[in-house]
Amino acid sequence: MKAPVKVTVTGAAGQIAYAMLFRIASGEMLGADQPVKFQLLEITPAMKALEGVIMELEDCAFPLMHGIDAFDDAKQAFDDASYGMLVGASPRGPGMERSDLLAANGGIFKAQGAAINNVANRDIRIVVVGNPANTNALVCINNAPDINPKQITAMTRLDHNRAQSQLAKKAQCQTDLISKITIWGNHSTTQYPDLSQALIAGKKADEFFDMDWYENLYIPRVAKRGAEIIEARGASSAASAANAAIEHIRDWVMDTPENDWTSMGVFTDGSYGIAPGIVYSYPVRCSDGEIEIVTGIDISSYSREKMEVTEKELLEEREAVKNL
Amino acid sequence: MKAPVKVTVTGAAGQIAYAMLFRIASGEMLGADQPVKFQLLEITPAMKALEGVIMELEDCAFPLMHGIDAFDDAKQAFDDASYGMLVGASPRGPGMERSDLLAANGGIFKAQGAAINNVANRDIRIVVVGNPANTNALVCINNAPDINPKQITAMTRLDHNRAQSQLAKKAQCQTDLISKITIWGNHSTTQYPDLSQALIAGKKADEFFDMDWYENLYIPRVAKRGAEIIEARGASSAASAANAAIEHIRDWVMDTPENDWTSMGVFTDGSYGIAPGIVYSYPVRCSDGEIEIVTGIDISSYSREKMEVTEKELLEEREAVKNL
Repeated sequence: MKAPVKVTVTGAAGQIAYAMLFRIASGEMLGADQPVKFQLLEITPAMKALEGVIMELEDCAFPLMHGIDAFDDAKQAFDDASYGMLVGASPRGPGMERSDLLAANGGIFKAQGAAINNVANRDIRIVVVGNPANTNALVCINNAPDINPKQITAMTRLDHNRAQSQLAKKAQCQTDLISKITIWGNHSTTQYPDLSQALIAGKKADEFFDMDWYENLYIPRVAKRGAEIIEARGASSAASAANAAIEHIRDWVMDTPENDWTSMGVFTDGSYGIAPGIVYSYPVRCSDGEIEIVTGIDISSYSREKMEVTEKELLEEREAVKNL
Repeated sequence: MKAPVKVTVTGAAGQIAYAMLFRIASGEMLGADQPVKFQLLEITPAMKALEGVIMELEDCAFPLMHGIDAFDDAKQAFDDASYGMLVGASPRGPGMERSDLLAANGGIFKAQGAAINNVANRDIRIVVVGNPANTNALVCINNAPDINPKQITAMTRLDHNRAQSQLAKKAQCQTDLISKITIWGNHSTTQYPDLSQALIAGKKADEFFDMDWYENLYIPRVAKRGAEIIEARGASSAASAANAAIEHIRDWVMDTPENDWTSMGVFTDGSYGIAPGIVYSYPVRCSDGEIEIVTGIDISSYSREKMEVTEKELLEEREAVKNL
């Protein structure tokens, strides 16, 4: 058994965290030989509900759960943390403009970035789940100058999994026969789910669909799936988001499968001509705990156009939070 | 990879199922080499919400999920099912007497028992989670005469885990150092969490506590933990209940750990002097897919008294549903 690691989860009394914590504690994210100590962060009014979540976690008697603490202060919650699941975010209120939302969240992620910079383990791995995830991650990066920006990522794995699942439906196959899907750009409706490299049981995926389906059904469905679920469930997707966050970190730590990749929002270095200094989703491979952008993919003019639309949105978001 | 098995989950749009389905689909209950086909049962008004849950399960692209169907008819939902997670139950409404609750649920479990008898796999393994779980399981058994009653069980694993966790807190140790706890009787406030055989790191557990703590703090706390969680969370314990159901089936299929046992509500055969023909929680060991009641435990007069109180409650519950 390894030494325990500290896992910080923010928004810990919310629905996504509720779907995430029990799976982390059972070993699904970091493995059956990795004990965890939870450091849970919430806003003060949610501390009582969080206490109930903690009681339920205790009631599972998980052998891997070696500790659990609750905080309403980021500096305490991130102390020596090796993993950060940044789930908590300010929701879009009635009449709120997108810029208001960016600013409200920017404030949260500025403070958390500063706390991470001050007290987290220098090797902390962070996935930002709370929306707008890419720009929240950017604010966090910019406020944690002593942490390698490669360690602070935004989650597009839910989009990636949705893209995989919708393609499997179309091809009437199991999801595990599909590989090399990419989500480019922002975790928003401008995202570009790219099937140009995708394989189904080793064959080029585009044998299984036509452009009309791809353009008019597939891309919008993947991009707007969240709204479709709210409409059906009467609640936003929590368990599938939690699952994606777990898989994001799991693949980061335990490697992406051979002959495949996944998608993550990472701090841009100019790869594929995307502006440096934003958090943009790329195809990535993980090995030995490092994330590397997949290189050498041919970008068609069709793809280029879609990649630029979502890049433009991220540049606008960056502009809106530039004072943070 | 094994051939897929059908897993029926009732109350599939509810909170417990929401915390359960994703973990089953990821392999936590039946193992990483066992694909599953879900057959989800709900009442008609909840079918739209269930559709949302199914969309989220699809959005996880679980390689082990080989199918998913939704039904509002028990006979379709249990068709050829190898596992039944009977989560759905009628909640206690305002002004409802205990007898009303028993009758309302009896109706549900009578119909489900009949459906199971008609269409389920003859080797189906069932855990009843919906309350009153023991007597719901009994109604199910009595309406499924062609199914071996040993295959229909009630969940007391949540109580068992709570008992383990609270003892670990008292002894300030990790939960996995504790073994041989027993929950006797009904999954209700009359249950008897018995530490007389319990070991902590190989030592008799009673070295770590006195009778005053055991009688006045420990037993009531374990028995009333559900209410404590509702008070803190503002919602009933869903994720810890789901976890317990998963562990109940997992241990049934993959064996209880060597040198330990777990607790399950099983159809009584007179063991330990308990009346035959009720569903009563015992210490059990599982191997090769069979549940066996642990034999040869010395029962003190203290234990005997508590075992009879909870037995009496179950006999009264049986009386209340005798027409079913």
